[in-house]
Amino acid sequence: MNWKQSKNSESETSMKGGRTDLALEVRESFTEDNVEIKGVILKKEENEQKDIRVTTVEITDKQGEKVMGKPIGTYITIEAPHLNEKDENFYKPLSEEIAKYVERLAGGLKNKQVLVVGLGNREVTPDALGPDVVDNLFVTRHLINEYGKEFKEKHNMESMSAISPGVMAQTGMETGEIIAGVIHETKPDLVIVIDALAARSVERLNRTVQITDTGISPGAGVGNNRKELNRKNLGVDVIALGVPTVVDAATIVSEHLERLLSRQGFSEKEVECFIQEMNDPSMRNMFVTPKNIDESIKQISYTISEALNQCFFKGIGA
Amino acid sequence: MNWKQSKNSESETSMKGGRTDLALEVRESFTEDNVEIKGVILKKEENEQKDIRVTTVEITDKQGEKVMGKPIGTYITIEAPHLNEKDENFYKPLSEEIAKYVERLAGGLKNKQVLVVGLGNREVTPDALGPDVVDNLFVTRHLINEYGKEFKEKHNMESMSAISPGVMAQTGMETGEIIAGVIHETKPDLVIVIDALAARSVERLNRTVQITDTGISPGAGVGNNRKELNRKNLGVDVIALGVPTVVDAATIVSEHLERLLSRQGFSEKEVECFIQEMNDPSMRNMFVTPKNIDESIKQISYTISEALNQCFFKGIGA
Amino acid sequence: MNWKQSKNSESETSMKGGRTDLALEVRESFTEDNVEIKGVILKKEENEQKDIRVTTVEITDKQGEKVMGKPIGTYITIEAPHLNEKDENFYKPLSEEIAKYVERLAGGLKNKQVLVVGLGNREVTPDALGPDVVDNLFVTRHLINEYGKEFKEKHNMESMSAISPGVMAQTGMETGEIIAGVIHETKPDLVIVIDALAARSVERLNRTVQITDTGISPGAGVGNNRKELNRKNLGVDVIALGVPTVVDAATIVSEHLERLLSRQGFSEKEVECFIQEMNDPSMRNMFVTPKNIDESIKQISYTISEALNQCFFKGIGA
Amino acid sequence: MNWKQSKNSESETSMKGGRTDLALEVRESFTEDNVEIKGVILKKEENEQKDIRVTTVEITDKQGEKVMGKPIGTYITIEAPHLNEKDENFYKPLSEEIAKYVERLAGGLKNKQVLVVGLGNREVTPDALGPDVVDNLFVTRHLINEYGKEFKEKHNMESMSAISPGVMAQTGMETGEIIAGVIHETKPDLVIVIDALAARSVERLNRTVQITDTGISPGAGVGNNRKELNRKNLGVDVIALGVPTVVDAATIVSEHLERLLSRQGFSEKEVECFIQEMNDPSMRNMFVTPKNIDESIKQISYTISEALNQCFFKGIGA
Repeated sequence: MNWKQSKNSESETSMKGGRTDLALEVRESFTEDNVEIKGVILKKEENEQKDIRVTTVEITDKQGEKVMGKPIGTYITIEAPHLNEKDENFYKPLSEEIAKYVERLAGGLKNKQVLVVGLGNREVTPDALGPDVVDNLFVTRHLINEYGKEFKEKHNMESMSAISPGVMAQTGMETGEIIAGVIHETKPDLVIVIDALAARSVERLNRTVQITDTGISPGAGVGNNRKELNRKNLGVDVIALGVPTVVDAATIVSEHLERLLSRQGFSEKEVECFIQEMNDPSMRNMFVTPKNIDESIKQISYTISEALNQCFFKGIGA
Repeated sequence: MNWKQSKNSESETSMKGGRTDLALEVRESFTEDNVEIKGVILKKEENEQKDIRVTTVEITDKQGEKVMGKPIGTYITIEAPHLNEKDENFYKPLSEEIAKYVERLAGGLKNKQVLVVGLGNREVTPDALGPDVVDNLFVTRHLINEYGKEFKEKHNMESMSAISPGVMAQTGMETGEIIAGVIHETKPDLVIVIDALAARSVERLNRTVQITDTGISPGAGVGNNRKELNRKNLGVDVIALGVPTVVDAATIVSEHLERLLSRQGFSEKEVECFIQEMNDPSMRNMFVTPKNIDESIKQISYTISEALNQCFFKGIGA
Repeated sequence: MNWKQSKNSESETSMKGGRTDLALEVRESFTEDNVEIKGVILKKEENEQKDIRVTTVEITDKQGEKVMGKPIGTYITIEAPHLNEKDENFYKPLSEEIAKYVERLAGGLKNKQVLVVGLGNREVTPDALGPDVVDNLFVTRHLINEYGKEFKEKHNMESMSAISPGVMAQTGMETGEIIAGVIHETKPDLVIVIDALAARSVERLNRTVQITDTGISPGAGVGNNRKELNRKNLGVDVIALGVPTVVDAATIVSEHLERLLSRQGFSEKEVECFIQEMNDPSMRNMFVTPKNIDESIKQISYTISEALNQCFFKGIGA
Repeated sequence: MNWKQSKNSESETSMKGGRTDLALEVRESFTEDNVEIKGVILKKEENEQKDIRVTTVEITDKQGEKVMGKPIGTYITIEAPHLNEKDENFYKPLSEEIAKYVERLAGGLKNKQVLVVGLGNREVTPDALGPDVVDNLFVTRHLINEYGKEFKEKHNMESMSAISPGVMAQTGMETGEIIAGVIHETKPDLVIVIDALAARSVERLNRTVQITDTGISPGAGVGNNRKELNRKNLGVDVIALGVPTVVDAATIVSEHLERLLSRQGFSEKEVECFIQEMNDPSMRNMFVTPKNIDESIKQISYTISEALNQCFFKGIGA
């Protein structure tokens, strides 16, 4: 997660609420749900049996990009109230659903070589999602390289490699540099990036998966020349799979304040003044996260790694 | 830390701000600093050379107890802006200072058998302080039991044992039950409890150590019959050493709101109404913590364990 | 595991091979398999479908105790070549099998209050089995205490609590002291102890589960007054569930030597002389373990915790 | 560490003992210490005050390479009986000594950009040395990139970045591929590789540091096209810093056997026959390590990371 990037994530919509990595939350900030936004296509599906709701936001042109403050591309949001529960009845159908959408966004995985990247800092519980997913993966690339095509066919495998590069404060390098280097040497066809995200509302924490084909920004932090992890910078397709695990502390305060003041009849302009005045530098490096975050991360990372294992090793558990 | 106890920590002062485990912050909520509160004695010391400020709050009678919402006893607060920095110039003098106050509150440690208890959940970064301290301790009790008094004298040791009991959601037992059992079997003269605390303001996070002789309440959680870790319940003296590592999310929101509204000229009564209205159940299980919490916890727990190692093994590193 | 106890585990059979915690391996050291040993009853079952072999050794009297060098009681050994493989086809039937034998040895678990103890040092991979199992348990005692009998019945739960006490070098206390204290306070009807064991042969490592009703000796180490974890010392029934994860380095060397020399035609007496001469003090604190020990421990601890979760929470995953 | 490479490490000397990564142990296998070996220069220094012994083996030509079974280059071995002890009196002088030899082999570090690579698997205690060292490093590259040359001079820093790439079974990639990629992107002048090594004798475990300028072979494992981490393959200078933390189980058995049989008067030829006969496939993936390996690794990795921090950030702790 890009802990330090709040100030870079300003967008046209930022005054209508704090930082969010979820396209769905940006879309929701436009109060009238049914109003069509030019350049933005919205589609909802519900799977009641699985207790899952899937929303697809497609940003199709520059106009949509500007309004949404997110790059052109497809954003699939899976809302699953039981995502963080340790219960076979939930995580199995969920991992199948995630696998389905990853495959769909990738345009199929058959005979593709894929590199999975677990972003984040394994020492901070809510940011350990990426490394935890990678820890549970069943990598296959070295086996296929060694034992050949026949072995691959026999076991119904696709080639998958994986890395947890660490964060810049641990490595002294931008994540984009490390990944670009690994791509240069191992030539994958597709990169799947896993990361913990920031949401705007606590209700979504640990209950939502966002899958996009637009890439992602890791903790660029101090530097200016940060490298987004996307097709343009990496030269290969990038699918980003994220789960909101924290809310920025400043965001949560302004969200509550905004809601409260609006209810009290203050004008939008007045609310803005309030919030700006309240701007508290001590909050800048604080985040909000649920108290059971350890178990949630453990369960969610297991569900996602099972989804990916299914994608690349169909024979597994069959 | 007692993640789930917010609702139990109501006190006379609770309307004047959210939950805090720091006596110092309760004292500060009485706006006029110089006003004497009956039953409460305040003493301040400063060590400029070490960049440390020490405040002692003594609650001397029922009256003070009621006003402060904390039990009778001594609360020493060491404010050290560099507590979470990995720098020899800071952590050595700090660990000496902590050692000094622990010994003072204990009335000396010579020939006492001491049990150190690391409260908290080692899987949640800001709550891992207690277990991390215990992991770094140099325990001596088994060595003294084995090699005898001469060995003890020769190495200038006191008897120290240590345990990280885990939290109720991990054990199914109250921490008080486990500790009472261990005390029953091993008969220490003194228990020193280490725990992560909640503060009211983010400025204090990871920069403050509170040492008290009043004991502490671990995560009693769902039950009513929670067992405070104090002299009354455990039958031995208890010193609690805590560091605030989180702020309750609801607390931070109401703090900010309160400050803002007061500045806007709202009456205290109005502010209260606002806050009550805003009461958001989804915030109940959320906490706020700094983004560099992993490094901070590592450094602080090291400083505290070094302080305790000095107390019990004078020969160490000398 | 009792890393330091090798010298205490001498038994009548010790000259015929090194240290083993497995009754099965002691029995096997009597070369003629069909010879009946007085006081020892042997029973074998095979479940070809599950690829599991179960051997029950019952030591029925003092005579058997002396010959076997193990206390009177029942020793169930489940040999499962796939125990350490991450494959649903294997670990599910295995966890059911383990659950079955635990229940059988316990004489049923209905309405019993059970304390699970994870012995060992979580920082040493092959010794982390116990703590890892406890980390995965779904404890219920506090829920039943809070929500009552109706809740218990509705969810088909039995009361289970759990603790990982750590090893003496971490706590300064004997494990037996800690457990006795916890029992004194929480009054369980049965204690189930999980521990990593030493085997004599590398073939058994991470492929065998031993379940006994005789208790177990944790790392007594330096002291003489070590406390075995058994009915006599703890005052409640004890079931010990162990998995061999290491071979003592000295054991492995003498085993190989013995085998080789016998094949070369040396007499038993000569072999013994060789081995005694080779006695190498530098080997005393060394152990042998497989190179993939991390994944094995992760998988085995998961299988065992699932077995226990099934025993105490029948509703789980159903 | 290259857990699976035993079969690849055959050399001319392999019959005279099992696998070792230490040039010093190879040299010792030539029984007459004073005999000069062509192409091999030996130099010994002792620092009694620090209780350190330093041996430099220089392999100067193809002849020396062939005899020693190690590539041309310099091998510095620091033998320090207290390397794994948590005692300020030892680890400070030791880390200074290590820093000195690293700087010497590097021909100075002034204005060099250095990439530190922590090889090994963080989930297997004796193999976690490399990742543990990297976890404790104070990386500077991103700071210098951001704040510029003046900042660098003011703080007396050199540019250091660091990565723990994981092992092939975790990533599906050869370590050499990952490192080559990172070098391609970040262009360091020098790579320092940290790894756990295998020794032949248990006496050396956790008490020896080997520093070489010849590079190192990470776990090439299943493939043939393994990539050694050396100047030839990576295009930059490579310094490898290793500590023996395990002995191959097969090695330890044959070492003991050999010693014993020689003492019994068997001829070298006979001994060889014995050992070959004993060749036990079940031992192939077993290693021997001390029982206190967790504390040893923690202490040694701390000492090494302090050595490197001194090299790159002279201002630290000063």
